[in-house]
Amino acid sequence: MHELAKMFRPQSVAVVGASGDPEKLGGRALLHLKTLGYQGRIYPINVSAAEVQGLPAFRSVMDLPEVPDCALILLPAGLVSKAVEDCAAKGVKHMQVLSSGFAEEGGEGVAMQRRLAEQARAHGIRFTGPNCLGSISPPDGYFGTFSSLLATARPGPGTVGVATQSGAYGSHIYAVAGFRGIGISRAIATGNEADVDVATAIDYLAEDPGTKVICASLEGCANDDGLRRALLKAAAARKPVIIMKVGSTEVGAAAAATHTGSLAGEDRVIDTVFRECGALRVSSIEEMLDVAYLCSVGPQPPNAGVGILSVSGGIGVLMADACIENGLQVPAMPPEVLAEIRAVQPMAGGRNPIDTTAQLAGRLHVVETISQSMMRGADLGAVMFYLAHLGRDLKRFPPLAKALTGLRRDYPDRAVVAVMTHVDEVRLALEAEGIAVFEDPNRAVRAVAGAERLRRLQLGAEAVPVIALSACNEAEAKRLIAEAGVPVPPEHACASATAAVAAAEALGYPVVLKILSDDIPHKTEVGGVLLNVADADAAARGFATLMERARQARPDAKLDGVLVAPMLKGGVETILGTLRDPVFGPMVMFGLGGVAVELFRDVAFASAPLTPHRAEALIAASRGARLIEGWRGAPPLDKAALVQALVALSRFAAAHPEVASVEVNPFLVREKGAAALDALVSISTRC
Amino acid sequence: MHELAKMFRPQSVAVVGASGDPEKLGGRALLHLKTLGYQGRIYPINVSAAEVQGLPAFRSVMDLPEVPDCALILLPAGLVSKAVEDCAAKGVKHMQVLSSGFAEEGGEGVAMQRRLAEQARAHGIRFTGPNCLGSISPPDGYFGTFSSLLATARPGPGTVGVATQSGAYGSHIYAVAGFRGIGISRAIATGNEADVDVATAIDYLAEDPGTKVICASLEGCANDDGLRRALLKAAAARKPVIIMKVGSTEVGAAAAATHTGSLAGEDRVIDTVFRECGALRVSSIEEMLDVAYLCSVGPQPPNAGVGILSVSGGIGVLMADACIENGLQVPAMPPEVLAEIRAVQPMAGGRNPIDTTAQLAGRLHVVETISQSMMRGADLGAVMFYLAHLGRDLKRFPPLAKALTGLRRDYPDRAVVAVMTHVDEVRLALEAEGIAVFEDPNRAVRAVAGAERLRRLQLGAEAVPVIALSACNEAEAKRLIAEAGVPVPPEHACASATAAVAAAEALGYPVVLKILSDDIPHKTEVGGVLLNVADADAAARGFATLMERARQARPDAKLDGVLVAPMLKGGVETILGTLRDPVFGPMVMFGLGGVAVELFRDVAFASAPLTPHRAEALIAASRGARLIEGWRGAPPLDKAALVQALVALSRFAAAHPEVASVEVNPFLVREKGAAALDALVSISTRC
Repeated sequence: MHELAKMFRPQSVAVVGASGDPEKLGGRALLHLKTLGYQGRIYPINVSAAEVQGLPAFRSVMDLPEVPDCALILLPAGLVSKAVEDCAAKGVKHMQVLSSGFAEEGGEGVAMQRRLAEQARAHGIRFTGPNCLGSISPPDGYFGTFSSLLATARPGPGTVGVATQSGAYGSHIYAVAGFRGIGISRAIATGNEADVDVATAIDYLAEDPGTKVICASLEGCANDDGLRRALLKAAAARKPVIIMKVGSTEVGAAAAATHTGSLAGEDRVIDTVFRECGALRVSSIEEMLDVAYLCSVGPQPPNAGVGILSVSGGIGVLMADACIENGLQVPAMPPEVLAEIRAVQPMAGGRNPIDTTAQLAGRLHVVETISQSMMRGADLGAVMFYLAHLGRDLKRFPPLAKALTGLRRDYPDRAVVAVMTHVDEVRLALEAEGIAVFEDPNRAVRAVAGAERLRRLQLGAEAVPVIALSACNEAEAKRLIAEAGVPVPPEHACASATAAVAAAEALGYPVVLKILSDDIPHKTEVGGVLLNVADADAAARGFATLMERARQARPDAKLDGVLVAPMLKGGVETILGTLRDPVFGPMVMFGLGGVAVELFRDVAFASAPLTPHRAEALIAASRGARLIEGWRGAPPLDKAALVQALVALSRFAAAHPEVASVEVNPFLVREKGAAALDALVSISTRC
Repeated sequence: MHELAKMFRPQSVAVVGASGDPEKLGGRALLHLKTLGYQGRIYPINVSAAEVQGLPAFRSVMDLPEVPDCALILLPAGLVSKAVEDCAAKGVKHMQVLSSGFAEEGGEGVAMQRRLAEQARAHGIRFTGPNCLGSISPPDGYFGTFSSLLATARPGPGTVGVATQSGAYGSHIYAVAGFRGIGISRAIATGNEADVDVATAIDYLAEDPGTKVICASLEGCANDDGLRRALLKAAAARKPVIIMKVGSTEVGAAAAATHTGSLAGEDRVIDTVFRECGALRVSSIEEMLDVAYLCSVGPQPPNAGVGILSVSGGIGVLMADACIENGLQVPAMPPEVLAEIRAVQPMAGGRNPIDTTAQLAGRLHVVETISQSMMRGADLGAVMFYLAHLGRDLKRFPPLAKALTGLRRDYPDRAVVAVMTHVDEVRLALEAEGIAVFEDPNRAVRAVAGAERLRRLQLGAEAVPVIALSACNEAEAKRLIAEAGVPVPPEHACASATAAVAAAEALGYPVVLKILSDDIPHKTEVGGVLLNVADADAAARGFATLMERARQARPDAKLDGVLVAPMLKGGVETILGTLRDPVFGPMVMFGLGGVAVELFRDVAFASAPLTPHRAEALIAASRGARLIEGWRGAPPLDKAALVQALVALSRFAAAHPEVASVEVNPFLVREKGAAALDALVSISTRC
């Protein structure tokens, strides 16, 4: 059993600060426990009353006849510390601190919250909050929250688990889930997260036997390996995780920081971590619930192929477009299957989508034949039916229900989805058979695409090994990356024109001259690079030119002379980089160099360190991959050298926490070999 | 009055093929007219009955006591022609042909449809269909359709007009509109479009005084100027047009062609035409109705600024993110406004979104003060309130209703949007005041963004002049574009090495050599270009090299020698192009050349011909624009020369219908001047 199981599914609960007035928070929480079906033991704690809302009350947790599984704390902030001492004295191991007045108020509240966390830790107590909404477990009739929402919209029991930081966010999710008939297993709001955070809640839900699908929302993230571990645990258990991270734009992130005081991780890093750990990131609650609904009703599609049967040609095409745009496939049916279909419905058009046309009235039984034929005609992960308004027509629906449920039973691992306007009676009957029902065609397609993508993400999820940290090293950029194993062409630092000519003669012409100065990291901006230097005369003149340009552009820069390097031609310029994310640690980046990175941000990220296999996947994730493979008849380039360099650079980044970032730009990948033509290493000043 | 007004809002209607059996199409259509509130005169036409469904029936339209405004034809296909003759004899000017069995069945049906169109045209009769669902006008109680949907879901009267080709598509739209309480003015399904098409229906709705917002769906488009004119008419009337074009992916387009037999225009061309004519393209029915709803309830936001007030920090951030992602702005409130806000709600966080926190219970009146302060703090086109579940709480909602309606009255041209779970009573009261209500935060933001974008699109909509067509001209590519006014550097066709050296000496070194052959349009693929040819010796050797390479690669190609051209350096490579769309005519394209066009498809389109002003807008629509303006301290390039070349090329394309496409790639834009380095002109074989 998970160590937090008793926190979220308690057999007995103390309500500390219980009130007789249901308008007060401590009264409303007690009322919810009393009246909404909870079968466990409820102990109101109230210093002055012998009875609260008809239940016998106790002055302190210490007076209780047993150790409650969980204590809900609803006292004013200043009284919480004493209550925690009482809980500790009694031996309570789980609390939910719903009281506000802590870090969210700043000032003294921050210190109070820190003391609360220390106090609980000292006594071995785990807790949610402070300033949280509590949690619910509809299958147990347990609603341990003061949310006023429950008066008008109470979610039913089900298999979708919800973990959010914000209570309002969480209750919005479960309220909308309730309206749409999506049942909830547990919903947990973690508030200020002085102990249990969303990552911990996901970890719990990943083990919770009643939870099949997990919906989560993060505002910040202070617990790096915890989140990764929790997501990987869910992926290993094949529980789909659909996750939102709010604060993805600059305005949003600024607001999130104000709101939560926690760190808004760099958005693409979050994307990467979610993807690597098998979670599907979505950007709206609606999409989250659509995917969760599909995954909770029936199986995730085992492949990207979709069969579409539509009573409207136009809507069939709309859905096919949406499939392609969302990464699904719509394989054409073979001629023999089309012949079978036309044998029962001569008007049927298309090869997939199959347009039965509206001339189906009175002959709805042919839908069964057509859909069975389609299943035989291609390897379909999902079959989607557009049935217009037939879901509102109880008289005419039975042959369609027969077609849908027959398919469901004959192909138990495929997703079957009906898109139509409908009455609840029809929807509930189909859902009971494992068939999902949507009203909007696009939302249905996006849900299928999300569920299918989740399946692939979870299959691909893998743990990234944690590397032991080594000591700081402040040697300069090129030497560092060369030592790390990134190929760097021979080049010579020359303090005089004579030395530059000698170096060029030794390398062989043509050469490249580059200004050498710690104060000028971006050489091209001062005209500090000369290409194709062809002879001794040009080399000597080039030295003078570069020194003069640098002096003009940066009179205060300390100039160390020029670098002389061989002029490498051919190949494709790429960019390699690393950065150390404050939450998720070392990340590595690959992209096409030059205009592609500047204008199109064609870069992909992965957590460091990379294996060769993951390095190949990183390369494939960028559009530049097509140039590496040999573009338009050009010979393929040395991908092995690129992979080796990425692996080496990623290991370097993982092993050196003092390195804030590395940028190798350009990294030239050639037909044979590859070379770092420039590199910039930023060392964190904290080391 | 629009010439089709009597077709869609008839005062009298003949039902040709009326039946006493409501299970039959001709019975159901009559039943709808009889029972759903239509106040006009209904004439059943039936060859054998004196009375149908209790109404006196007539053997023929010719026997009617008046000329009906419209005749609904519900006969079997073979009987339609005779009915049309009767209508013509009576003087009927409008028909809706609901009968199927025409072009959608192929074969003889195609010919029958053609004859029907000719027959109607000869008699001056306008008609929808055949194979259409008819039309409805809920404000008139007029439901001239056999759609079985009306039995269970009938849209209410309102101001949203709907025009679709497919009946199922159209009825899906108005059914969902009905469920959501969005009222419909007219909904028109055009079926096989032998006469009236969706463009014509939009044209009607643009003039219809009862229609405020237009929703349309196209599968194909056979009427180019008609669609442009209709959209521009709606834009001029400031009626928002929200439009879908199904068949946007290859699979979808193939299916659309099967379904409708009409042409699926190239998707980006459609995008361009919609945008130029001020229509908002959406990809789902849900988004269409969300935007239509917002525009029909209240004003479109007059600018992109959005104020967000949220009782949940997390949802506020979610909405701010969504605003930015959808092109809206979320301006920060100035300190004095924040001070006003904190004076009434000390816990309030953020600068916009303003997070009131959930500690608002019992003090909901402060929302009015806060929102009024926000309005004074920035120029907001829309104010959005996230109010969690308060829309379900009739007791607590009144102070919020006061805040919302107060804002609405004080700022009549701004959009006010409430996002919350809610009961119908609350929603209807707010909608009556011009306040839109959504449940999902992201959908609300997308609707605001769509309405705001529509406003900008309509302001920018302008007619593109139609150019008279000239005779064919088969001269070769470079000369054609040079004559058209596109700058082409001097270059010499040389049939021998000697001639090549002479040409190079005349131009001055370095030069470029390019293989010259009609059979080798893509020179680089055979290694057919030599850059930086530095002297006479290199030019002579280069001639031999190119001829040899071409012979190796294309032994059967006819070689005309080499082109010798000056070697132009510096500047940015772009691509200019034109194509002649089969539906929308000449289009012009601009983008960044090289890898940018190959990998990123960074190109933008506009209808030809361009004015200089529209050419600048076309350039700005591509990411390459940043390089033209001067990138990272580089000097700005000669945009005027680029604009001139685009205008010249667009005029050339517009004036020469025989030119299927032009590709100038690369077109080098330099600090001073610009030049076409290569050009390919494809002449249509029909000319």
